[in-house]
Parts: sequence; structure tokens; C-alpha cells
Amino acid sequence: MKIGFIGLGIMGKPMAKNLLKAGYSVVASSSNPLTNEEIKANGGQVVDSLKEIAAVSEVVITMVPNAPEVKDVLFGEEGIVDSLKPGSIVIDMSSIDPLASKDIAATLRERDVQFLDAPVSGGEPKAIEGTVSVMVGGDEVTFEKCLPILQTVGASVVRVGDVGAGNSAKLANQIVVATNIAAVSEALVLADKMGVDQTQVYEAIRGGLAGSTVMDAKAPMMIEGDFEPGFKVDLHLKDIRNVMKTGEALDLDLPLTKFASDILEELDEAGYGKEDHSAIYRYFEKLGKEKK
Amino acid sequence: MKIGFIGLGIMGKPMAKNLLKAGYSVVASSSNPLTNEEIKANGGQVVDSLKEIAAVSEVVITMVPNAPEVKDVLFGEEGIVDSLKPGSIVIDMSSIDPLASKDIAATLRERDVQFLDAPVSGGEPKAIEGTVSVMVGGDEVTFEKCLPILQTVGASVVRVGDVGAGNSAKLANQIVVATNIAAVSEALVLADKMGVDQTQVYEAIRGGLAGSTVMDAKAPMMIEGDFEPGFKVDLHLKDIRNVMKTGEALDLDLPLTKFASDILEELDEAGYGKEDHSAIYRYFEKLGKEKK
Repeated sequence: MKIGFIGLGIMGKPMAKNLLKAGYSVVASSSNPLTNEEIKANGGQVVDSLKEIAAVSEVVITMVPNAPEVKDVLFGEEGIVDSLKPGSIVIDMSSIDPLASKDIAATLRERDVQFLDAPVSGGEPKAIEGTVSVMVGGDEVTFEKCLPILQTVGASVVRVGDVGAGNSAKLANQIVVATNIAAVSEALVLADKMGVDQTQVYEAIRGGLAGSTVMDAKAPMMIEGDFEPGFKVDLHLKDIRNVMKTGEALDLDLPLTKFASDILEELDEAGYGKEDHSAIYRYFEKLGKEKK
Repeated sequence: MKIGFIGLGIMGKPMAKNLLKAGYSVVASSSNPLTNEEIKANGGQVVDSLKEIAAVSEVVITMVPNAPEVKDVLFGEEGIVDSLKPGSIVIDMSSIDPLASKDIAATLRERDVQFLDAPVSGGEPKAIEGTVSVMVGGDEVTFEKCLPILQTVGASVVRVGDVGAGNSAKLANQIVVATNIAAVSEALVLADKMGVDQTQVYEAIRGGLAGSTVMDAKAPMMIEGDFEPGFKVDLHLKDIRNVMKTGEALDLDLPLTKFASDILEELDEAGYGKEDHSAIYRYFEKLGKEKK
């Protein structure tokens, strides 16, 4: 089976290389000549255009920043929609808003092309290890066909529901992560203002009901003031904007998402967009200093 | 060593019984005759007043609802302060605001009585098992003296810092728990409005960065609509009011605490005070229905 891979960035490139290592035939076409060399050196095929990728692939994976880029790859001037083989499958592994996933699936279905939304969580190191978590939306038959491919790039692959469900789960994930980072920040700033050692507080509460993966991953970074990414503020902001967009389309108030959105926008404007999202702590630290 | 135990409620009674089982001499005086019988049946001593408890104890443990009750037990009309033996220790295991702990410690110190604030996390089942987490504030010498006692009632006993640090950690804990419950709620309501099965979303995200003890304990309750306590809304509200009070005293804005406080107040007023704090979900569920 030939797999086309579009979007050989920080996440996409290692995922394509893992598919090659597993013996899949991968065809790609990067605008970056060095990336093309790397794909060839790993046994992949490089062609001249995205359309050529589509013309020869049974499955096309897209891994790009957001919905406009996915739509551009599919339906734009250089878009592949007319080159896709009938009966082929597009797996969009980008994190986009789930309503866009549904629109894309509907349009492709008219061309006899099946679609899965399959966003991932876990950063570059997990993409390299092939251990990202994949949340999938789409029909069961298409999911089963693609499962071996997805299991090659991810450690956990869960079909959440029909098309859009993968990105709905991803947005749910991003709400919880952003808010929990904010909660740990507020708690640690309070401890600091009470004159209590933050590390001691972290150690005292991490084993109880307050404990979380976020707390263990991010509290030490907050305490050290070390915001090396990790998952960047501007990427989390992109996801949170997609949550806001989805909430608006559903006419649903999302007060915590709105709160996280305001903080992330402020951080991004202040030049912290390339820091780890644990830099949300900066907002609470500032609250602690303002009135001192 | 004789331990006086004041406050034989849902948490205090099993803790006193665990001390008796471990061989400590415990003296108590409940207003409930059945509780007094139970203490006697377990080998404890029952006296007629709190003052008599203080007069014969090397260590007095208090486990009452909040700071006013602690102050009443110590300094009120029936208060024990003048009966405490010089050189004795008061361990307050109630969850109160840390500034009150500091005030109490200062007053007791003038009488040559040492003080620890040692609030616990974990509910009635853990109190019965002797596996609560104890967060302790106080000087190291007093802490070391009381450590065997605290280890009898708790599985984890951490000295967080000087007096007030135990309750500062407890408040930090309660901020994170309330906010994380709210975050999981908002995420699950969004998933539901997107037409995605909430259990599938929970399963898809629980293993990643969004995963937490709160999510595993509370998401299934939210999905089932089962809010049997557990830890009650009105108790979490009491703690969150203590956070607000502490924030005001420090002139520190705590936006997430304020948000949690508004929700918990609303739930309590609507008659949900005796439900589990996972009933915070009700607030977000209502947001999801309002505009439908």
C-alpha cells in the first residue's frame, strides 16, 4: 500500500520516517530540499507536486498547522482533490476544528474518497518514538483499514466516534490541559505569597486528588521559571481558538476556554508565543506582583 | 503519651479509633453519648469537658469544621486554653485559613504551648483506613515529636513549612481540584454538544497530558449523572471561601478560585450542597442547555 505524506514538519517528518521504517511505501514532496533528501535516504519516494502524491497513493496523510492549510492542500490551487484516486482515503492528522473536519469529509465523500480526522497528542519526542496518542473520528470500516498505519505512528489509537470526533476529543483535551496549567499556577502563586516553599506544596499535594500529569510535567518548570518547549503557547492558542470557534458555532458558552484564551492571547502578544504553555504561570505570577 | 481528641465527627472519630488501635491512650468528650460509648468500647477514656481533656493530655488534636470552631474550642467560653499543660502541643487537623493558623499559634506560644496545622485530604474511607494525606505546618522539633501520631492516621505525612504552611498547601490543593473538576466538565459538555460519546472522549484523553486523578475519579460520575458524595459541595465551598479570604488578606487576585466560588455558591443555594463536588458539572450542563 502506498502512503502519501503531506506536511513534513516537526511532527510529520518523524511520523513519515516511522512509516518507512515499518516497511510502508511512502511518497512525499517537501518544499524543503533537505527534507526530500532525508525521505529518500530513508527509502521514501519524492515527487514534484502534491497532485502527483495523490495520483499514486491509496492513503494520503495530511499533517499541517490548521484547517485553512488542510483545505488549501485539498481544495486550493495546487490542491489534490481532483487527483485523489476513487476509493482512496485521506487521514488528516492535523489538529483542526471538528466542524471543518465534517465539511471536508462531506466534500471528499462526493468524490468517493473516505476521510478520517486523526489528531495526535504528544510532542516531537513522541512523534520520533512513534508513541503519540491518536484520537480518531470516522466510520469503522475506514478506521479498521487504517489502524495498522496509525498504530505505526502512535502508541494509543482510539476511535472516538464518527468524523469530527477525533478533533472534538482533541479540543476537550486542550481545554483540560490549559485550565489545569492555570489552576496549578494560581495555587503555586498563592503558596508563594503565603511564604511557603512551592516545591514542598507540590510534593504535599501531587499524590492526592489534585495530582495530574500536568502537575508533574509543569509544576517543576513553573517553580524553576524554565519555559523551554515542549508544547508552545502559540500552538495551544491555535487549538484554544478552535475551541472558541466551535463553541460559537454551537452557541455554547465555554467560560474556562475563554479565560485560557485571554491568557494565551496576552502571552502571545507579549512575545512568549514560542515558550512552553506552562508559561501560563507568568500571568498568575504577574497577578501576584501587581499589588505587592 | 496521652492524646486528647476534640471533634469526633465523620473524619475525627475514625482517626481517634485508629490511634486507639495503635495503642495510644486517647481521651475524648463528645456531646453525642453514642460516640462516647464507641470511644470507651475501643479502650478510650471519656471525660466530662474539653477542659478536662486538656488538663490530662500531652497532645490535643482538634478536628472541627472551620477556624471559628477551632478558636471556640481553644479560646471560647468552654475553651481549653487555660487548661492546656505548659509544654503540650495542639495539632489542628481541621482545614482552615492559614492566617488563622498563624494567629492561633502565636497566642498558644505565649502559654508555652506548641502548635501544628495539619489538615488532611482524603475523605471518610481514607480516615477509616488511616490513609489520609496530612499536610503539616510547624517547627521541625514539634513536627518530629508528633510524626508517629500523624503517621498513625495518615499514609502520607509531609511537613510543608512553618505554621500555616499545612493549610496553605490544603488551599492550593482545593484550588486545583475545584478548577480541574470544572475543566473536565466544560470539556465533556463540549463533546456532548458535538454529538460525541463522552465515555469515548474520556477514554481517548485520560492517558495523555489531560489525565488526572480528578478525571479518573469524577468523569465517570459526571457521565452517569451520579453525584453521591464523596467530598461534598458545601465542604469544598467552605475551603474555597477560605481561599478567597486568604487572597483578600494578601491582596492577591485569584480568578479561578473566584470562578469556582461562584459556581459552588450557586450550587449550594440551589440545594446541591450535600452532593459530591463533581456536581460542578451541573453548572456546565446548564450552560449547554440554556441556548439549545
